[in-house]
Amino acid sequence: MAKPKKTPRPKAETPKGFRDYFGAEVTARAEMLQAIAGVYHRYGFDALETSAVETVEALGKFLPDVDRPNAGVFAWQEDGEGEKPGDWLALRYDMTAPLARVYAQHRNDLPNPYRRYAMGPVWRNEKPGPGRFRQFYQCDADTVGSASMGADAEICAMLADTLEEVGIPRGDYIIRVNNRKVLNGVMEVAGVLDPANPDAMEAERGIVLRAIDKLDRLGVDGVRALLGVGRKDDSGDFTDGAGLSDAQSDVIMGFMQAKRDSGAATVARLRELVAGSQTGEAGVDELEEIADLLAAGGYGPDRIEIDPSVVRGLGYYTGPVYEAELTFEIFDEKGRKRQFGSVAGGGRYDDLVRRFTGQEVPATGVSIGVDRLLAALTAKGRMQQSVQGPVVVTVMDRARMADYQAMVAELRQAGIRAEVYLGNPKNFGNQLKYADKRGSPVAIIEGGDEKERGVVQIKDLILGAKIAETATHEEWKDRPSQFEVPRDQMLDKVREILEGQGK
Amino acid sequence: MAKPKKTPRPKAETPKGFRDYFGAEVTARAEMLQAIAGVYHRYGFDALETSAVETVEALGKFLPDVDRPNAGVFAWQEDGEGEKPGDWLALRYDMTAPLARVYAQHRNDLPNPYRRYAMGPVWRNEKPGPGRFRQFYQCDADTVGSASMGADAEICAMLADTLEEVGIPRGDYIIRVNNRKVLNGVMEVAGVLDPANPDAMEAERGIVLRAIDKLDRLGVDGVRALLGVGRKDDSGDFTDGAGLSDAQSDVIMGFMQAKRDSGAATVARLRELVAGSQTGEAGVDELEEIADLLAAGGYGPDRIEIDPSVVRGLGYYTGPVYEAELTFEIFDEKGRKRQFGSVAGGGRYDDLVRRFTGQEVPATGVSIGVDRLLAALTAKGRMQQSVQGPVVVTVMDRARMADYQAMVAELRQAGIRAEVYLGNPKNFGNQLKYADKRGSPVAIIEGGDEKERGVVQIKDLILGAKIAETATHEEWKDRPSQFEVPRDQMLDKVREILEGQGK
Repeated sequence: MAKPKKTPRPKAETPKGFRDYFGAEVTARAEMLQAIAGVYHRYGFDALETSAVETVEALGKFLPDVDRPNAGVFAWQEDGEGEKPGDWLALRYDMTAPLARVYAQHRNDLPNPYRRYAMGPVWRNEKPGPGRFRQFYQCDADTVGSASMGADAEICAMLADTLEEVGIPRGDYIIRVNNRKVLNGVMEVAGVLDPANPDAMEAERGIVLRAIDKLDRLGVDGVRALLGVGRKDDSGDFTDGAGLSDAQSDVIMGFMQAKRDSGAATVARLRELVAGSQTGEAGVDELEEIADLLAAGGYGPDRIEIDPSVVRGLGYYTGPVYEAELTFEIFDEKGRKRQFGSVAGGGRYDDLVRRFTGQEVPATGVSIGVDRLLAALTAKGRMQQSVQGPVVVTVMDRARMADYQAMVAELRQAGIRAEVYLGNPKNFGNQLKYADKRGSPVAIIEGGDEKERGVVQIKDLILGAKIAETATHEEWKDRPSQFEVPRDQMLDKVREILEGQGK
Repeated sequence: MAKPKKTPRPKAETPKGFRDYFGAEVTARAEMLQAIAGVYHRYGFDALETSAVETVEALGKFLPDVDRPNAGVFAWQEDGEGEKPGDWLALRYDMTAPLARVYAQHRNDLPNPYRRYAMGPVWRNEKPGPGRFRQFYQCDADTVGSASMGADAEICAMLADTLEEVGIPRGDYIIRVNNRKVLNGVMEVAGVLDPANPDAMEAERGIVLRAIDKLDRLGVDGVRALLGVGRKDDSGDFTDGAGLSDAQSDVIMGFMQAKRDSGAATVARLRELVAGSQTGEAGVDELEEIADLLAAGGYGPDRIEIDPSVVRGLGYYTGPVYEAELTFEIFDEKGRKRQFGSVAGGGRYDDLVRRFTGQEVPATGVSIGVDRLLAALTAKGRMQQSVQGPVVVTVMDRARMADYQAMVAELRQAGIRAEVYLGNPKNFGNQLKYADKRGSPVAIIEGGDEKERGVVQIKDLILGAKIAETATHEEWKDRPSQFEVPRDQMLDKVREILEGQGK
């Protein structure tokens, strides 16, 4: 073993943008993933786990977030062999790119359609910020090989079921559905997309997309300015506009504000807006089909609605787009009330597999941001904040460790979380401080005197803490928090105390 | 979105040494991790999840496997800022190095002792081979900050409980315990370790360690040759020996063969062998203490035994060393019977945290190779090989998709895994082939005729397959595998068939 004697001491730090998760943070996430997997399974999706590492070639450059153009990957080059240079490898940045690779690689063996779910960390090589990490969890479900709107409708329904399963009650979330083809139709009608020359005016359309996405922040006037000549912000910086005429801008603004009280009315309004565009009409048909399927399944607009203002991801997807938003308010880091926002999104992307095979394979899917969903539940106080600590058997006599180990063995066999204090037992106060730090419900004490008399002392630490807090309170004053019981009644008494604490 | 038009198509392949896991492979592992976490939790360990990425500086070069000296990490350099070069980052190669970093970073906030478990993938940048992957799962539990042999004994007991919990019955595994200090004592007595000059003769001790580890393969004579002048193998290659005299070799061989029928007898024999070495006697005391604690907890030599021939990891650990081996026989890839071998190992490593803090912090822990354990259970036929497929509702009339979606919604709400066929419904044969490929237990058919009469057809696909297999068999001949029931009895009939199949 090499001894790093002369090198300076390494810094004990996570790399920038990474963090550690302790105790309940880990178990709460594991439980959430398990709950989500349960719903995905019931919907007929099969598990898939790809490795964290892919070739850069297979991953491609398909980062879905148009607002993060510089998002990159963590990549490195393998050692070469002889003259041959090594492959470039990278950590996956999402679950969709590996799915495309898996489908292309195994398509002859997989069922068709292939329905899979995948959960795990993904990595983004981007500038870390407060609350913004370079490793986070995603939980995806996709149907590859189906052009049916049934596949999209089903994923929206599943998303609603999933949110309720993990503890977001109906009314605290809304799933919004839009369609890329409708937007393209609107672009055609507005004259910024020519079906005969689809690559022209791409820059203008990019500005339009980004402008639509800023409606919440800039308001109608700000977006209008961006659609037209451009906009100077409060700091004096000027953002170029798309150069649209007022009439053109009217069409786009009409699209953004097309939402009506019912899905049917919204669909009707969109149909007016895209009149004359084949693509646009196909998109409205798709939206209508999804709305009908969802209505037949009992998923009304209290859970899933058609909303033309959803544009996030529209630059990436090719048909239906959906997004789940939590609608309750939380307090942000500056103490201001705000809506929690998006926790999941997805849509149809019919050309991702084509990179590998040359064939167009229809696909649709959703990705849940598990860490954001956990943060939401935590903000609402619906998350268990800590794991119950173990019963701590204290060490009064170092030579009798075997007695203490026998006690914890008895407790554990009864399914009770327990441990012997394994630090230096000399200072008894430290043992109780340890029990406190672990959130232990009960401490057990067996000194020489107790051993002789065949008894143990059992301390109810939860009750003890309450008594200490409210020393003068009548309710607690006369209740003992420490009990002496015969050794062979230890297990029963501990069980009784734990049950009492659970009430 | 950039379109990779002119670049050649990427290859749809996992990088060398990585693989994908499908369906039951994923869920079986998730269930195993959950079962292991349950035992670790009951023993008082808290969950910790560190990020996959660490600084190379923090990871250090502490690969524990002495037989893989070239094992490396996957590493890359961050972009620098201005003149300042970026940090080197790497994927973790085990769970112990990140634990050392976490403990050094958070030691003022963590309970002391700190007991944590961690599970997840680790990565090794080494030459992949058959069945040898560069990403695999580990599941560790460690107690940091305790010098007590109670901590070591407990981990051995926990390992036994864990193996039984995941489905390895008593008798099919053995946990072996040894101690680095006893080996050092034997080295002192044999004259290849001088306590006053511990760095001298390191090369000789390395050869001795590697020779001991080869006892199984080379036999007593081969090991003796390696301890002495060296050994020529069957291919004619010569391996240098440690240059020990016969008397010196006798001491080492005595250590390897010191195992007796009972732990007490083994301890007594070891005490003879290390007589005169302070370190060796301390090691024997430790082994004796562990044996006593385990005996008091009811963990006899049918589960855990003292075995001086365990040397794996002795070069890395500083005190007790333990290893779990599965003792049943399996057939290897060449059809030969062999013992399955090691699935977990660990020990005491008192100086890992010192790299960061300068202080020596005692620590001990175990790592379970989850993928190996899964392979063992699979080899024994104790693993579920597939996940039950969904009930498949076939599509007879594309326009009535809403009806079919309502059927699956009804089944799912009753907790039954179900889906509508989402591929092109034109060819009904493809729909049944799909159901077969998914391992579906039941298919549901509702054509126009059925719709009119208010009924559905329900096919028992498991029974259907049995009938097809044994067409002439009397038992099946007269049993129908397809049932017509009123639409409102669909759920009940599906339930009845699923229950019948479960028998």
